[in-house]
Amino acid sequence: MDYAAESLKLHEALRGKIEVVSRAPVRNREELSLAYTPGVAQPCLEIQKNPARSFDLTRRWNTVAVVTDGTAVLGLGDIGPEAGMPVMEGKCVLFKEFGGVDAIPLCIRSKDVDEIVRTVELLQGSFGGVNLEDIAAPRCFEIERKLKERCSIPVFHDDQHGTAVVTLAALLNALRVVGKQLQNCTIAFSGAGAAGVAIARLLHSLGVGDILMCNREGLIFRQESQTQAIADIAAFTNSQNRRGTLTDALRGADIFIGVSAPNVVSEAMLRGMNPGAIVLAMANPVPEIMPDAAKAAGAAVVGTGRSDFPNQINNVLAFPGIFRGALDVRASDINEAMKIAAARAIASLVAPEELTPDYILPMAFDPRLGKTVAEAVAAAAHASGVAAVAVMVGRRW
Amino acid sequence: MDYAAESLKLHEALRGKIEVVSRAPVRNREELSLAYTPGVAQPCLEIQKNPARSFDLTRRWNTVAVVTDGTAVLGLGDIGPEAGMPVMEGKCVLFKEFGGVDAIPLCIRSKDVDEIVRTVELLQGSFGGVNLEDIAAPRCFEIERKLKERCSIPVFHDDQHGTAVVTLAALLNALRVVGKQLQNCTIAFSGAGAAGVAIARLLHSLGVGDILMCNREGLIFRQESQTQAIADIAAFTNSQNRRGTLTDALRGADIFIGVSAPNVVSEAMLRGMNPGAIVLAMANPVPEIMPDAAKAAGAAVVGTGRSDFPNQINNVLAFPGIFRGALDVRASDINEAMKIAAARAIASLVAPEELTPDYILPMAFDPRLGKTVAEAVAAAAHASGVAAVAVMVGRRW
Repeated sequence: MDYAAESLKLHEALRGKIEVVSRAPVRNREELSLAYTPGVAQPCLEIQKNPARSFDLTRRWNTVAVVTDGTAVLGLGDIGPEAGMPVMEGKCVLFKEFGGVDAIPLCIRSKDVDEIVRTVELLQGSFGGVNLEDIAAPRCFEIERKLKERCSIPVFHDDQHGTAVVTLAALLNALRVVGKQLQNCTIAFSGAGAAGVAIARLLHSLGVGDILMCNREGLIFRQESQTQAIADIAAFTNSQNRRGTLTDALRGADIFIGVSAPNVVSEAMLRGMNPGAIVLAMANPVPEIMPDAAKAAGAAVVGTGRSDFPNQINNVLAFPGIFRGALDVRASDINEAMKIAAARAIASLVAPEELTPDYILPMAFDPRLGKTVAEAVAAAAHASGVAAVAVMVGRRW
Repeated sequence: MDYAAESLKLHEALRGKIEVVSRAPVRNREELSLAYTPGVAQPCLEIQKNPARSFDLTRRWNTVAVVTDGTAVLGLGDIGPEAGMPVMEGKCVLFKEFGGVDAIPLCIRSKDVDEIVRTVELLQGSFGGVNLEDIAAPRCFEIERKLKERCSIPVFHDDQHGTAVVTLAALLNALRVVGKQLQNCTIAFSGAGAAGVAIARLLHSLGVGDILMCNREGLIFRQESQTQAIADIAAFTNSQNRRGTLTDALRGADIFIGVSAPNVVSEAMLRGMNPGAIVLAMANPVPEIMPDAAKAAGAAVVGTGRSDFPNQINNVLAFPGIFRGALDVRASDINEAMKIAAARAIASLVAPEELTPDYILPMAFDPRLGKTVAEAVAAAAHASGVAAVAVMVGRRW
């Protein structure tokens, strides 16, 4: 299928992939007086007395803002805020269909960190959570950090953390396939952007043998006069402070994680990896190395970002259930414990007897997925002290 | 019915009066690839080439932001942004049910004019229009003025202009009942706030005999050392620069418009009006004078803001159709011509043979209402040069 042409046709026919509907009947004066004036004054006064009641008396409890500045949309780059909206609407569709979350797309016409932060901060009373999307690095790091400080609702940059959660889920099951422990593995990265750093940090928080991150200049190592972003990476990776290329990093590695560019890894490079190599080549739409080539070079398990190969590393496995769980307990944050719980929940949906090198992740359409992830995330939120309420009953799950 | 208690129960049961739903099927990989990646890249690129395509390829064409700072919510005053949300959600329900508009409630945690303006300005790419709501005067004037300068989509403060449109509609038919012409009438106002000034300006733009506006200090007249807001009112009202009280203003007036406070008009005061007096006493929930008293004092036509008396002056008659019409032609503004067209369209729905002193406005539930107002507004947008496209077919009407 010509996805580009067909998708354009679909978008022209739909004229919007989401829509707002009313849940309150207003068929007569009586109903109008309850949903609107004069009756509505009473819920307003209740919230004035106790602003937390906005989670009971309005849709806030279930509503997430999907926020972009349009600067890193898919692989298309800085295409502008309005041009990012089809992706944001698509994300809102997935939030609803896979997580029961009401998501609202907001594009911001600014590339200024403080303006973007202030805009979202001022709107937080309308939402139960914020999903940052397709914002270019390094701006995205600062925006997320500042928003987490200033918001009492969870702020989650899916390109970083959703990718990290699904990558971890894939690794947990891939390691079972090859019979290795994460704690003993050396992990080589191609790509030290937003997704790469988030994956590396999440893996580091769990304890790994070593992480070797490469950008276009090769292995990242500690040295004088490097940018803060690079120094931050060097601080927790490359324990022996090795220098070299991606080829050097791959030599003796157990896991390759690609979040960079098409075709930057050759079969020869992969042959330097340890036996039972795990290759997650996630550049889109063309991976760092094609699955057939990776297998020919000895990889035991291969995953990509693509739906037309086995083991698709797809954020849709994670973010709907993560937000569902966070919203259900009115979490103030989505923290490391919740992300790890989500990854484990995703991995758990492939039973040990089902696990094969070509089946390490559940399907996006697995009906258990959202509920399983949400429950694990909600429990982790409680255990880590960021949940405000018990899980509500009567949700979509 | 105890509206307060019943409304609170309804809000607790509904947990949100609106919700976001998906219009795009994502039941399998194929559909996911069209609504989301990789297919969605194509509509993104189309919008990058021509940002106006965002009105064809996303829901922008039908989406309005309902924006408040929570400082003038109903008659409750400054109750805070979150506490205003039940009203904003109610407004969104009415937008959908009476105008087919997707409306999204946004509350802003700031009372700073420039911060509120900047927040909305930065988000305009997500919306086809902006409805400002329950923002205190005089801040609301400056916010609206600045946003109109900076936005390429219509910005409409309903508390001002929606009220003005419905009041004008009521007057047009009330004047038919009493057999008078607006151009010959003297109009006395109690209240010179946001709604009062907007009504006065709209009437002035049509040409009236004279307008006499009173605030708590009495008749507004031209003098040295007055605030800019008062000087602006004095500049187009009170042609003889009279001084005095509301009682003085009512003496010899043909029309009374109350947008002020309960019970500020007595029967004795009304007796000073000309024969065939029209009294629109719109203070909520208790009007400036109760309808029975007004009639006893000789008023020929009486309207209030209440649904339990005849002739309810209710904004829901206007704003859904006004935005429907503006969105349908992708108007860049909602201007005086469009407002006047809306008022005439509303008034036209009471046929001459139906018109009585107790029936000057159509019912909010009149099924012709939204369509009739929208078509008139769209035509006026075209005639006044602010429409970007012809009326689309296949809308809700």
